[in-house]
Amino acid sequence: MAEGLMHASDDIELSVVVNTADDFELYGLSIAPDLDTVMYTLGGVANPATGWGIAGDTRNTLDGIGAYGVENWFLLGDRDFSTHILRTMWLKDGASLTEVTRRLSQGLGIPARIVPMSDQPVATMVRTPEGELAFQDYFVRRRQEDEVTGIRFAGIEHARATQEALDAIESADLIVFAPSNPIVSIGPLLAVAELRAALSATRTPRIAVSPIVAGKALKGPADKMLATLGHEPSALGVARILRPVLDGFVLDRQDSDLIPEIEELGLPARAMDTIMGDRDDRARLGREVIDFGWSLRTDDSAA
Amino acid sequence: MAEGLMHASDDIELSVVVNTADDFELYGLSIAPDLDTVMYTLGGVANPATGWGIAGDTRNTLDGIGAYGVENWFLLGDRDFSTHILRTMWLKDGASLTEVTRRLSQGLGIPARIVPMSDQPVATMVRTPEGELAFQDYFVRRRQEDEVTGIRFAGIEHARATQEALDAIESADLIVFAPSNPIVSIGPLLAVAELRAALSATRTPRIAVSPIVAGKALKGPADKMLATLGHEPSALGVARILRPVLDGFVLDRQDSDLIPEIEELGLPARAMDTIMGDRDDRARLGREVIDFGWSLRTDDSAA
Repeated sequence: MAEGLMHASDDIELSVVVNTADDFELYGLSIAPDLDTVMYTLGGVANPATGWGIAGDTRNTLDGIGAYGVENWFLLGDRDFSTHILRTMWLKDGASLTEVTRRLSQGLGIPARIVPMSDQPVATMVRTPEGELAFQDYFVRRRQEDEVTGIRFAGIEHARATQEALDAIESADLIVFAPSNPIVSIGPLLAVAELRAALSATRTPRIAVSPIVAGKALKGPADKMLATLGHEPSALGVARILRPVLDGFVLDRQDSDLIPEIEELGLPARAMDTIMGDRDDRARLGREVIDFGWSLRTDDSAA
Repeated sequence: MAEGLMHASDDIELSVVVNTADDFELYGLSIAPDLDTVMYTLGGVANPATGWGIAGDTRNTLDGIGAYGVENWFLLGDRDFSTHILRTMWLKDGASLTEVTRRLSQGLGIPARIVPMSDQPVATMVRTPEGELAFQDYFVRRRQEDEVTGIRFAGIEHARATQEALDAIESADLIVFAPSNPIVSIGPLLAVAELRAALSATRTPRIAVSPIVAGKALKGPADKMLATLGHEPSALGVARILRPVLDGFVLDRQDSDLIPEIEELGLPARAMDTIMGDRDDRARLGREVIDFGWSLRTDDSAA
């Protein structure tokens, strides 16, 4: 979605405020999966087959770690390792995660601003019948197979919003929640008190694109997670969760029948082809989303 | 040489006490070039073409670091990175360098004990007309082209010998100084007060193999360095430097004419074919060195 917005037109100034609650330390290195996925995607080096990692990357460092008898289930490519090594080094040298992300983005020649939600560590913890799991343990090692009975963002009470994230919200002409898991991807952003306050207070149109199409998550465990946490696993369920910070909602044409119920929440809704294909198709959705958002401006927000 | 000794016969129990004064930090990772070269060689994974690094290794992590605009002149392979990443992690977790080296060696299935000279950091600093350089800066980045006018081992006064190194000396039947640079490879070991004392006190035969053949270093800058530091760049020059901790000296057949002068130092000398070829040839030299060492036993040392 971020890529689609970036390429929607020539005069887009895009800031992407990114969840950092998936971040964790592995082999003493600071890994930030969501920041990396956004960076690699906007930098044009992402692996299109996986949605994470770098296209054509090799896995020799990780194989070497395994050869030493150390667990290596979290798949990191060799080129990918360079990101984690530099991030760790710069953080250790005292740079903020925001500054580190700026340097890495610059290195990849990314015109958009990629901004962590917070410079303080937050860790998503997943409650399951087997006990509480660290997010990547649940997500990668155990392949999202556990039933999720609760979610907790450890450290969230000490997480300040980054000034860059607040500035992005403050100066935006349009705010788009990408089609992401509303619980564990968008949820952490809304759990940062300053971000939630800024997103609640703004007069700028705020729209979300549903990550659930025809009751299924486009990728990942969002549908199952919504259901086991007591939400409806549908675009309507997502709209209900995000309602407090939204002015409009985009869902897939396959879910057009849900529009009346979503609009009953007081949320203008529009159906689009949200399953994105190639870069052109992403830009097409970006333009449609922007047009919809633009239509929601009040005199006040347009001022 | 260590490989030759390891394969010299089936009943060799080899301990290799290794210089750590080349160690340095790069990208926040602890790099130990000499330990790694010994480990990779005895583990059978060393790159025979370079003498360092791992055979067939790729260089994608380092390329990635370069792509981010960060200097990457110290050549580290992807598989090699796994060593540095784990070493750094384990050191950070509180393990000693000795313990880290034991774990890595075990991972590589090495039957010999590889022992750092010290668990405390020591850093070889190279004085040149351009100023003082960190060792790897001199050795790798500037390709040993600077004239060396002095050497200093920063931190040596706080460096304790590892117990494992002292035990190796204490229990040895034979002590062999491998054909290494006497100034910057063997020099640091002799500069650790406890090691020098143990090497001086032992009754075990101690022999060195000359790293200089026909006035040239087999590899590296030892010949130039000896000359600019006021030593004779020859097997004789090496014998003079190491004399205080030696009972015998091995030099190449090409240098047989130096035997009388070396023996005048009170040092029995023997000429051998010291330029090693394949594994069998290394084992051949290993056996010859052991035989020579054995011949130097006194009644006292044999007891």
